[in-house]
Amino acid sequence: MDTINSIGYPIYFNDSLAELAAFIERGNYSKFFVLTDEHTGKFCLPVLQKYLGEDAKYDLIEISSGEENKTIDFCVGIWKMLIDFGADRNSLLVNLGGGVISDMGGFAASTYKRGIDFVHVPTTLLSQVDASVGGKTGVDLDSIKNIIGTFAQPKAVFMEHSFISTLPPRQILSGLAEMLKHGLIADAEYWNELKMSDLKSPSAGLVYQSVNIKNDVVIEDPKEKGIRKALNFGHTIGHAVETYSLEHDENPLTHGEAIAIGMICESWLSHKRTGLSIEELNEIVEVFSGLYPRYTIEASCHGELYSLMQKDKKNHGSKINCSLISSIGRHAIDNICTEAELCSSLQYYSSLA
Amino acid sequence: MDTINSIGYPIYFNDSLAELAAFIERGNYSKFFVLTDEHTGKFCLPVLQKYLGEDAKYDLIEISSGEENKTIDFCVGIWKMLIDFGADRNSLLVNLGGGVISDMGGFAASTYKRGIDFVHVPTTLLSQVDASVGGKTGVDLDSIKNIIGTFAQPKAVFMEHSFISTLPPRQILSGLAEMLKHGLIADAEYWNELKMSDLKSPSAGLVYQSVNIKNDVVIEDPKEKGIRKALNFGHTIGHAVETYSLEHDENPLTHGEAIAIGMICESWLSHKRTGLSIEELNEIVEVFSGLYPRYTIEASCHGELYSLMQKDKKNHGSKINCSLISSIGRHAIDNICTEAELCSSLQYYSSLA
Repeated sequence: MDTINSIGYPIYFNDSLAELAAFIERGNYSKFFVLTDEHTGKFCLPVLQKYLGEDAKYDLIEISSGEENKTIDFCVGIWKMLIDFGADRNSLLVNLGGGVISDMGGFAASTYKRGIDFVHVPTTLLSQVDASVGGKTGVDLDSIKNIIGTFAQPKAVFMEHSFISTLPPRQILSGLAEMLKHGLIADAEYWNELKMSDLKSPSAGLVYQSVNIKNDVVIEDPKEKGIRKALNFGHTIGHAVETYSLEHDENPLTHGEAIAIGMICESWLSHKRTGLSIEELNEIVEVFSGLYPRYTIEASCHGELYSLMQKDKKNHGSKINCSLISSIGRHAIDNICTEAELCSSLQYYSSLA
Repeated sequence: MDTINSIGYPIYFNDSLAELAAFIERGNYSKFFVLTDEHTGKFCLPVLQKYLGEDAKYDLIEISSGEENKTIDFCVGIWKMLIDFGADRNSLLVNLGGGVISDMGGFAASTYKRGIDFVHVPTTLLSQVDASVGGKTGVDLDSIKNIIGTFAQPKAVFMEHSFISTLPPRQILSGLAEMLKHGLIADAEYWNELKMSDLKSPSAGLVYQSVNIKNDVVIEDPKEKGIRKALNFGHTIGHAVETYSLEHDENPLTHGEAIAIGMICESWLSHKRTGLSIEELNEIVEVFSGLYPRYTIEASCHGELYSLMQKDKKNHGSKINCSLISSIGRHAIDNICTEAELCSSLQYYSSLA
């Protein structure tokens, strides 16, 4: 697998942790910091440490895992640690973790002293194929996902496949939803290949293809003026369902589980609005239904879900803007959908056996 | 006075509020918001309203004036207002006020939904000649000035000289310190012209020249990798004195008063370190002493001031990096100064009659 060139920075796949150690050595940073959570601090940091060498000097910033902690308050905590540890403009932040770590660490670094260098070492499948590529950083405010953030590119991304093999199945499935999305919006062949694969444990090659698809899109449209919106397929409804679940469920849906629901609903919208055939709609539903558990969405919750959709960043004013598909492998962006259409799509999901 | 071109945006001096109204009209924004404090809401907004027309539709976000409110907490307040008012990515924020408004409003806008458009209408002399030009945004954290921020350019700046003529003398003097600094670091002729002028009420032409000097510097080095550091002359010590005063004095120093002290101290350092002649040192001291009140700095406070200087963003690690001058009109950046030198410069200030 070749190194992928993204927007001015490399994404390493081979010997990635050795590459990271070399990157830090070359960078001649005054200090470096590693941002972890309680899981990556325990399982991934010791692996990293081997490559950095036992006498590597860095300061550790550990935060609590979980999307509910991706807030401005936790970000203030990171900034204060950087101040206390004496981070100057020539410091580096290494984000070792999943999407919460890379989103919030990227935001903290891109705004500390108006921006210090940062790199990502994504440790979940989801963050490898999604959050770590594309230069979006963000934190949540008032339960609105990534409402505060910047476009800021890391100096490099290091993909370590061995981190993936230790993940629990539910975390694998969460990342897989984004991989399937990449196929649906841009590459029918990749979708077919994924369907046939051992989806319990996606190979490094499949991860590589997914990163490649996402990277091609973000390189073409870094600031989401046009085609990049295609990556939001399933996310208008999926984000709303995810936020709803976070607020109401004891054991909330993962990002991928919520996005899978969103993709079923938005595939139905695609059938109604942008020409997705009934056969392909059924195929998509079959794949997702075979992989992800059913989730009950009562009709009485549609109002609350619609309110959440109205807060989506892609909207123009109060109109809900959906990124759909016209067939498997072809995106169709900028579709204004009505409340009735969106609620019907939720009913469609609920009606599936 | 010609319109000045800055980093991709215009700075208007003639009929600036009419230009603003035309800019908003042209921009076809979905919504616009005006950020004010209790002073600019009362005195400047009615003037602006005349140009916008009585039926102009916008939402007002008012914050409390004062550097002590330029914090992440107040910024969260601005973000929440934008959410509540339904600001989308095609919204505009108009920052109507002094440096607190433009720094914090710029930061809030540049991070809301990963960046919406913003413009500055600086209403103080200080913000016209300093904060509104150069694309730095920021808020304070733990009393460290602008420690959190972004480099983000406004879409335009509108300089309205009539706002200046209503300012109290102390506010005029605060901005004047930055104008004098522009002469000292880059233009001896401008320094001489300023000295001879009616400094109680600087003309629009003098303001224009100051903006021009600052703009030339920031265009050459937008991200402060080199020459832009020259603008920090007087600020290593001045910022520390300002923060100290904010924390200890009932009636704290203005930014300009603190920077004037910083420039006296750093001119002494320039004499010791970078070849500023004794005659020019004395000339600088005479000008500042004639304009700004004395401030007592006890030797027992030097330790606390030095600690504050260590938090300056220009530093490399724990070393204090001062931007000095080699003569009037010539800057000399990147001078590492020791604690002993910095404390001696404070003693020099205190020793002046």
